[in-house]
Amino acid sequence: MTLVPPSAITRDHAAKRLGALATPPGALGRLGELGVWVAACQGQVPPLPLDDPQSVRLVIFAGDHGVAAHGVSAFPPAITGAMVRTFLAGKAGVTALARAHGVQVRVLDLGVDEDFEDLPDDVRATLQQHKVRRGSGAIHLEDALTREETEHALAAGAAVAREEIAAGARLLISGDMGIGNTTPAAALVAVALGLPASEVVGRGTGIDDAALMHKADVIDHAIDRAGIRISDPIETLAALSSADLAATTGYLLEAAGRGVPVLLDGLMSVACALTADRIEPGAAAWYAAGHRSTEPAQSLALSKMGLEPLLDLGLRLGEGSGAVAAVPVVRSAVALLRDVALLSDLMP
Amino acid sequence: MTLVPPSAITRDHAAKRLGALATPPGALGRLGELGVWVAACQGQVPPLPLDDPQSVRLVIFAGDHGVAAHGVSAFPPAITGAMVRTFLAGKAGVTALARAHGVQVRVLDLGVDEDFEDLPDDVRATLQQHKVRRGSGAIHLEDALTREETEHALAAGAAVAREEIAAGARLLISGDMGIGNTTPAAALVAVALGLPASEVVGRGTGIDDAALMHKADVIDHAIDRAGIRISDPIETLAALSSADLAATTGYLLEAAGRGVPVLLDGLMSVACALTADRIEPGAAAWYAAGHRSTEPAQSLALSKMGLEPLLDLGLRLGEGSGAVAAVPVVRSAVALLRDVALLSDLMP
Repeated sequence: MTLVPPSAITRDHAAKRLGALATPPGALGRLGELGVWVAACQGQVPPLPLDDPQSVRLVIFAGDHGVAAHGVSAFPPAITGAMVRTFLAGKAGVTALARAHGVQVRVLDLGVDEDFEDLPDDVRATLQQHKVRRGSGAIHLEDALTREETEHALAAGAAVAREEIAAGARLLISGDMGIGNTTPAAALVAVALGLPASEVVGRGTGIDDAALMHKADVIDHAIDRAGIRISDPIETLAALSSADLAATTGYLLEAAGRGVPVLLDGLMSVACALTADRIEPGAAAWYAAGHRSTEPAQSLALSKMGLEPLLDLGLRLGEGSGAVAAVPVVRSAVALLRDVALLSDLMP
Repeated sequence: MTLVPPSAITRDHAAKRLGALATPPGALGRLGELGVWVAACQGQVPPLPLDDPQSVRLVIFAGDHGVAAHGVSAFPPAITGAMVRTFLAGKAGVTALARAHGVQVRVLDLGVDEDFEDLPDDVRATLQQHKVRRGSGAIHLEDALTREETEHALAAGAAVAREEIAAGARLLISGDMGIGNTTPAAALVAVALGLPASEVVGRGTGIDDAALMHKADVIDHAIDRAGIRISDPIETLAALSSADLAATTGYLLEAAGRGVPVLLDGLMSVACALTADRIEPGAAAWYAAGHRSTEPAQSLALSKMGLEPLLDLGLRLGEGSGAVAAVPVVRSAVALLRDVALLSDLMP
């Protein structure tokens, strides 16, 4: 894939339009800059609206993590499958937000450690159409994925991005579900930034101090185990991530490759974005940050990519919820650049 | 008026519901607290939705300020009327945002220094139905309003709030338009906080350093001129505010008195909220802060009221725009408390 950046010419045109609006210079603050970025991504001034019910689309990548059986999470692994069922029922946090803000939701089981045999055949087939394996390896003890599984997951994520774009996506979001997933995600960030686990690790859904220290140890062990393979981002995914995180990385890469902007969510989304930018430098130019999570690794990874979150509301729900909550901010930015009068129209 | 606070009993019920949702404890961050506040204001758990196109209503209070002729603004006073026409045409920043987010907009001329004779009679009648006077006094030289005009403006604002509530408002917003209005608004904040002008004054729509020092001098002179009358909040409005700011104060007071929550905007909205809370201590319990403006006085006044803004996007457009941009955050909070499953429903 050859990655083309958002259009510099369109960015200039959009910045000129912003400066010509009937508002005091700079008065739109970050909403002005955000609108210019959306325009540059679309190659269109003013940008097309994001109000169409098909235009903003979230894919939740679900999977289990071997480390979850090793004391890194406040919740048992069985919650992963229970939450997938809650998404399908539309009763989770992210589905409530998506309904409130007109965002399409798709849930995919990439690596949940169960088969969902209780679900109707058609629902199960849709949910598992890109499944890579049941659970991923406990990264401090073994590789998360084989090289083949890693490539399969990356390709699956890319295929999902193409499907969503074909369905009308003008803005993509990745969500996550998987008990234990902040451990491999923090490992991806630690590797990308060259930091010890203790500087990136966070409390996830709410572990105590002892579990936090243990979680940092698990991450450091995993990185030691991976050895020099961490210099290669694909090998890093095989050693330290999971089916769901590798697929998310493939999805984010393909979005950038196809020129569709992404609104990033919390740690999982951002760790995969950072990994995508390692694989294809420049991918991050297609990403904006929806919200600041309470996980230190998320903020560190965003800084590395030069991204500043739109919202900072202390959310740590995961699921894609922070990005979905930030979708109206992007719509605000687009509306301003589209609908505010030009000074020249008011005072001809 | 006897001010009743938001229901403590409902707040407790709402907090219990929040704790019983199928999400990790605290994972909803400020969205959880915000939903509980909306429920307490409504006296209803879960809170009623704010999606109805009549339920969120913005009133823009427009007026001119004598100080605008004295070098405190980057723009000439004639812009006030031009912007009122832009609101009516739906081509301003705040109207673009209101359309994007389903917020009703009403524009009222409380004290613009012109008669809008070019407008159709019905439009003009609606616009001016609560007009107090043409322009308000230059506060460093004379009172902004007579005592009678002040009471008229407060009553007009209260009447407007009642009309908006009767039309279906479950959340009210105040917006502003008036070249020079950050000068009287900063004066209100300086008085309420007992601070010198130099500590509260900001650049408004973009004045330079010399104009900023001059603006601080104008405010200090105005406060000196008002003398001991600043110990009384109504006298403060007469001496230091304007027809539009006094009406905004009446509107915010009546909202609190009628138990309808308000999402505050930038400096004008917040200065009037602080003054309302001086008139009726406890009014601020009915207010939430939509966004952080770049005006120092706004942040200082919010801190005094114990309010933390939902958005911080560097906006300094005024008009109510920051609050309108924050409306979807309130809707997110309500949606989560309404639509997320209870843990007890998932695991009976």
